[in-house]
Amino acid sequence: MAQQERAIRTRRAVLMAAAEVFAKQGYTAATVADILKAAGVTKGALYFHFDSKEALAQGVLEAQGLQELPEQDTKLQEMIDVAMTVAHRLVFDPVVQAGARLSADPIGRRHYGSAWPMWVDVLTEIVTVARQRGETLPHVVPREIAELVVSAFNGVQLYAQLETDFQDIERRVSVLLKHLLPSIALPSVLLHLDIAPDRGSRVLAGLGPAPDVTGGSLTDDPALVAG
Amino acid sequence: MAQQERAIRTRRAVLMAAAEVFAKQGYTAATVADILKAAGVTKGALYFHFDSKEALAQGVLEAQGLQELPEQDTKLQEMIDVAMTVAHRLVFDPVVQAGARLSADPIGRRHYGSAWPMWVDVLTEIVTVARQRGETLPHVVPREIAELVVSAFNGVQLYAQLETDFQDIERRVSVLLKHLLPSIALPSVLLHLDIAPDRGSRVLAGLGPAPDVTGGSLTDDPALVAG
Repeated sequence: MAQQERAIRTRRAVLMAAAEVFAKQGYTAATVADILKAAGVTKGALYFHFDSKEALAQGVLEAQGLQELPEQDTKLQEMIDVAMTVAHRLVFDPVVQAGARLSADPIGRRHYGSAWPMWVDVLTEIVTVARQRGETLPHVVPREIAELVVSAFNGVQLYAQLETDFQDIERRVSVLLKHLLPSIALPSVLLHLDIAPDRGSRVLAGLGPAPDVTGGSLTDDPALVAG
Repeated sequence: MAQQERAIRTRRAVLMAAAEVFAKQGYTAATVADILKAAGVTKGALYFHFDSKEALAQGVLEAQGLQELPEQDTKLQEMIDVAMTVAHRLVFDPVVQAGARLSADPIGRRHYGSAWPMWVDVLTEIVTVARQRGETLPHVVPREIAELVVSAFNGVQLYAQLETDFQDIERRVSVLLKHLLPSIALPSVLLHLDIAPDRGSRVLAGLGPAPDVTGGSLTDDPALVAG
């Protein structure tokens, strides 16, 4: 195996292990030793890619990525699709689970940041265009909607995580959207929006595989894989 | 000072210190030593009332209490008042701040529990009566609304905590209610609901002082106060 390919594999194994440990234990309780054990790589290999717990958390947040989704007839459907695809990925993807948990950690985020500002920007842009196109009720303030959806979504995902280990999150996010959208969308637009709990899985099924953002910037890895 | 009165004061000092430490540091990072230092009592005094960090967290959750609020013309206004008074208390009351943080802690709550089930029960009962009285739209499912409000409220309070240290939480909860209520209340009821950001402070100003639930069950305290 080429050195470069090996380096990518090692980095990916470390990030997946870090995601699983952060998702399960949270930032404060997690240790680099836990992540090392879960990754099955040498200490040298891990530190070659990430020199601290903080760097590992940053790596997981970046790996969470922003999935490019298909255009829809309305921008409000695109807002729904952002929420429902993240909800779907939360069911099974440790990287997204860890991203949600890390972003909401009051202590940790002082060190490694949070994905919330990125989500607020993405949704503000979508709702701004939705308003320009006349999809929204006149009182709608795009940034207010974006912050409301990001913060309420976070509360709902945490509730689903703690109550059912994410198993009913798609239903819960669908319920959130069902109750928010009548005060955001024009009735004529509302009629065409798809907020079914399986919306996220259908949108993702129509795409190719998720972009791999675990590789990071490539440098040579001096053959540090365990074993 | 009578022993019993001193015991109550000691217990209250410990609970207030525990609330401040848990609110600031979270359960995992907080230590009994931190709480001891903040309380200014002896180790013996603290352990007389609470024999573990877990017991301190339980004590704070219980002290958070459920404030008896005045009856309103509609049950939906009473639901709003529960949310807006908690939002108001979150601005300045470390016990309520700690209660919110402890309830949402995935690791800690396995040990000491969570206030969420209590809030969900309270709101389910209010919305059930609201529906019986014909205040709600026909599709409303009381428990679904209760879980949605509790989980979304939690997301909003966390956002407010992290962005502005709770300073804008009343505005944010008001925005949440503004966007949820049109899909819950009949339009004729909606017209009379007060969801202004200062609703919580006005409702609380109309009451006497909050019930003191920091005293706990009374037993003699063998004179363990520091100094």
